[in-house]
Amino acid sequence: MNQFINRKENAVTEAIDGVLAASGGALSRLDGYPHIRVVIRSDWDKAEGKVALVSGGGSGHEPAHIGFVGKGMLTAAVCGDVFASPSVDAILAGILAVTGPAGCLLIVKNYTGDRLNFGLAAERARAYGLNVGMVIVDDDIALPELPQPRGVAGTLFVHKIAGALAQRGADLETIAAAARKVISRTSTIGMSLDTCTVPGSPKEHRIPEGHAELGLGIHGEAGVEQIEYSDANHAVAAMVGRLQAAMEDRPHVALVNNLGGTSILEMSVLAHALVGSAIGDRIAHVVGPAAMMTSLDMRGFSISVLPADKVELELLAAPVSLPAWPGITAVKPVSVVALPDGLTPIAPLPSRHEPTREFLLACCHLLISAEQDLNALDAKSGDGDTGSTLAGAARALIDALDRLPLSDHTQLFRAIGQELSQTMGGSSGVLLAIFFAAAGDGASSGLSIGEALKAGLARMQEIGGARIGDRTMVDALSPALDALDTSMAAAADAARAGADLTATLVRAKAGRAAYINAKQLEGHIDPGAEAVARLFEHLARHPALDAPQPRAATAG
Amino acid sequence: MNQFINRKENAVTEAIDGVLAASGGALSRLDGYPHIRVVIRSDWDKAEGKVALVSGGGSGHEPAHIGFVGKGMLTAAVCGDVFASPSVDAILAGILAVTGPAGCLLIVKNYTGDRLNFGLAAERARAYGLNVGMVIVDDDIALPELPQPRGVAGTLFVHKIAGALAQRGADLETIAAAARKVISRTSTIGMSLDTCTVPGSPKEHRIPEGHAELGLGIHGEAGVEQIEYSDANHAVAAMVGRLQAAMEDRPHVALVNNLGGTSILEMSVLAHALVGSAIGDRIAHVVGPAAMMTSLDMRGFSISVLPADKVELELLAAPVSLPAWPGITAVKPVSVVALPDGLTPIAPLPSRHEPTREFLLACCHLLISAEQDLNALDAKSGDGDTGSTLAGAARALIDALDRLPLSDHTQLFRAIGQELSQTMGGSSGVLLAIFFAAAGDGASSGLSIGEALKAGLARMQEIGGARIGDRTMVDALSPALDALDTSMAAAADAARAGADLTATLVRAKAGRAAYINAKQLEGHIDPGAEAVARLFEHLARHPALDAPQPRAATAG
Repeated sequence: MNQFINRKENAVTEAIDGVLAASGGALSRLDGYPHIRVVIRSDWDKAEGKVALVSGGGSGHEPAHIGFVGKGMLTAAVCGDVFASPSVDAILAGILAVTGPAGCLLIVKNYTGDRLNFGLAAERARAYGLNVGMVIVDDDIALPELPQPRGVAGTLFVHKIAGALAQRGADLETIAAAARKVISRTSTIGMSLDTCTVPGSPKEHRIPEGHAELGLGIHGEAGVEQIEYSDANHAVAAMVGRLQAAMEDRPHVALVNNLGGTSILEMSVLAHALVGSAIGDRIAHVVGPAAMMTSLDMRGFSISVLPADKVELELLAAPVSLPAWPGITAVKPVSVVALPDGLTPIAPLPSRHEPTREFLLACCHLLISAEQDLNALDAKSGDGDTGSTLAGAARALIDALDRLPLSDHTQLFRAIGQELSQTMGGSSGVLLAIFFAAAGDGASSGLSIGEALKAGLARMQEIGGARIGDRTMVDALSPALDALDTSMAAAADAARAGADLTATLVRAKAGRAAYINAKQLEGHIDPGAEAVARLFEHLARHPALDAPQPRAATAG
Repeated sequence: MNQFINRKENAVTEAIDGVLAASGGALSRLDGYPHIRVVIRSDWDKAEGKVALVSGGGSGHEPAHIGFVGKGMLTAAVCGDVFASPSVDAILAGILAVTGPAGCLLIVKNYTGDRLNFGLAAERARAYGLNVGMVIVDDDIALPELPQPRGVAGTLFVHKIAGALAQRGADLETIAAAARKVISRTSTIGMSLDTCTVPGSPKEHRIPEGHAELGLGIHGEAGVEQIEYSDANHAVAAMVGRLQAAMEDRPHVALVNNLGGTSILEMSVLAHALVGSAIGDRIAHVVGPAAMMTSLDMRGFSISVLPADKVELELLAAPVSLPAWPGITAVKPVSVVALPDGLTPIAPLPSRHEPTREFLLACCHLLISAEQDLNALDAKSGDGDTGSTLAGAARALIDALDRLPLSDHTQLFRAIGQELSQTMGGSSGVLLAIFFAAAGDGASSGLSIGEALKAGLARMQEIGGARIGDRTMVDALSPALDALDTSMAAAADAARAGADLTATLVRAKAGRAAYINAKQLEGHIDPGAEAVARLFEHLARHPALDAPQPRAATAG
């Protein structure tokens, strides 16, 4: 599997420097590359009297831990190689860099390497007289019988609560006690549909299709069991079954953690499933869903629960300006607002106007009679249905004539647009609906019929994107409307010339024909342009149909 | 490929309700499920006189668009099915729900379906007399020759800048003009190493190993070309090559967008590569890296650049409390801080004290002589090297005797810990180093030798996690130290009894033996416990070696 790294040996240092460059100066690192990879708050002054919080461990869990270094959370993060504990020297460097008279708390996830290396570093720091405490996070409940549960995403509760306390000036003993209290009551369980991709290692295909691993850590190790996977609700139910045993009968905070490769859409579906699960009524607050403690690109997630008391809730809610910390929110029923009025268009008052009726009928009949010809033209560049689409719309319009406001052009344009949007499929239906609706807007704001139609065309072009020369109906309609001021005959001539020109446009730039080979188009008129030309030619040949003048038009 | 959804038909509505439940009440939705999926700000009052911003489009781009609904960004988001435009009715519902006298701006990505449906909805809203503007984002530069570039992650610049303007009370015309100005100067290019997984569709394996797609959209469509992929730096260089042509010779903001499935470690490596690229000196600010406009779980990313002016920078920096918006930061050189003093332990002043020397030598020789026996015991439960590890450490300690502070037990404990941490590999080396370091701490704070050793044991147990009965050296060491107050003989008896007891402990709970079958362990003494027992037995048999009393001990 390809990955966006350079050499695996440099992945961690390059990633850290990438975060630092984009931190706006908020983060610094110690000058110990490649072995000592310690990120610290740039604004930290160890003489200021606040307790420093140092965490870290293997890399590959980003944004943990450097994403949580900042005011109100960690003071420093010590980064090992991917999934490997940092060295004692690196941890000691981190401790020494940030620990002042108020001391320092190490927040360590329960893995042997981390415990030992952080533990020894703490001893070495104590030999310098520093006041160093250490807490070990062991929130994983995947293996209930083992006395050494792993530290996983529940660690974030510790970072946030201890961080807020330290920011408020609490002393080391108080912070360590609060951290231990959080740790003793936090439970986490994880699930994954696939393994993660470790830089430089071949991807392991361990989980068969239709299965998931339940109770996994954050280092790519196998879950405690493979279960059959059916859907999100059952997945969450399986996890909830484990969590329930560890939960108290009171409100909890749930931290919903993306293990790295789960889409955000899925994470939201999972959050929905959790709220609706058997423990849903005990989930009063939620942190996330967000990627906080990842396992590289693992397609999985974890749920951590903590029965936070009032003070802990306050500390979790204390604002921090770290994009990696998503904040905590109260879970509330989904707020549903009534639909606004106006979705069902108000039907215009039907009215009679014989010349307009005749005019529309003639147009419709022309389009119906052209069905086969236009289909044949469309078959050269598309799926051969332009004629049928237009004829179908024409037939529907004839059926609708009696309910149209024929005596009021402003309303009529809009009504035709409305009819077309309901009866004519595809892009062309929407575009013609926009054309007539915008023409109605123009007419209602006092434009002449000709100007209103031009306004409709402009809007249709703006939305559809077609310009002159793009081999669409615009190539006939635009010159026709320009010539309409002179006469219908001039408009017809212009429409025909425009339509014929499309046969020479071998490179369509908009509409579906844009994807067609030039050779296939040459010599064939665009069917939409042909329809427009035929309409104008028909109207020019039958002057009796020209320019019906009902009420609103005279007002224009 | 499994996914964390239930039925694909419900994925979008469940995801929306998941986001709403976790929004703390900040978001509401219209009562139009399943077809009308519109999310609005709960605190929005359209009578207040601010311009509403409505965006949306197909789903699958989370957190876009509902993640950006909130004060200072969008007023409403209209969600279609995955990768499908929402209906005209849904968009109209969104417009009607939030548009007051100040009007509404539609921010639409340049896809035919979105243009048409948003366009027609705008017309229908205008028929109600609403002031509706629309801008079309077309920031993708993958296909420079096509006049219809797609709208991709650069849309976020528009959301943020227009959102901040609207929040400040700017009128529709001003906001639309600012949005168009941003759009005309934003360029985006994307790259992916794999396709995305569309709910309900089989995954397409289109990109061969060692290749990447350059110039892809956000709907799973193929990129404009497949290129050979070598590493992150070359990937960014290829994208920068395209971006350069579109960039001005002035500072830009770069928006670094995770397309959904790229690990955060990789995203940071890519940010590092971008800052070091040919356009690095023109990237003055960065938004992200973060998942903002995703393509489900696509293992890819995009870079958008905008030569933001002073006002635009201000608007981009205006604070919003939306976790999906990562904020904007100035790109700065990586800040590197000198390593703290103290990483190289201060070597203690060597001193002579013959009884202590004899004592240590005897212990070391005993361990060396036990090498084979202990290895044999270890072979029952591990890799058979406990004897060699201890013997090696003993040999190294003999070599170090002349530089140890033999006449000062406090310093001596710490010095032995330091020696062991450097010469003895594995967990046991670190644990013994912690034991001696903590014993040194105890001695230095006034404890007697016996009490200091107990303090060391406690710390070692805290870090290592082994308790009595866990089948480790603790089973012999702990009772021995307890009995040491009585006599060395009592200590030896206690150590031997404890060690022998480990042969009956068929379930190891800590250390490597925890993973071994019970049957394999039965009848075999733990090698660490055996070593401790032999040490104490040896000391008890040679009273001359008992209790050397140099300076510090008398002070204790």
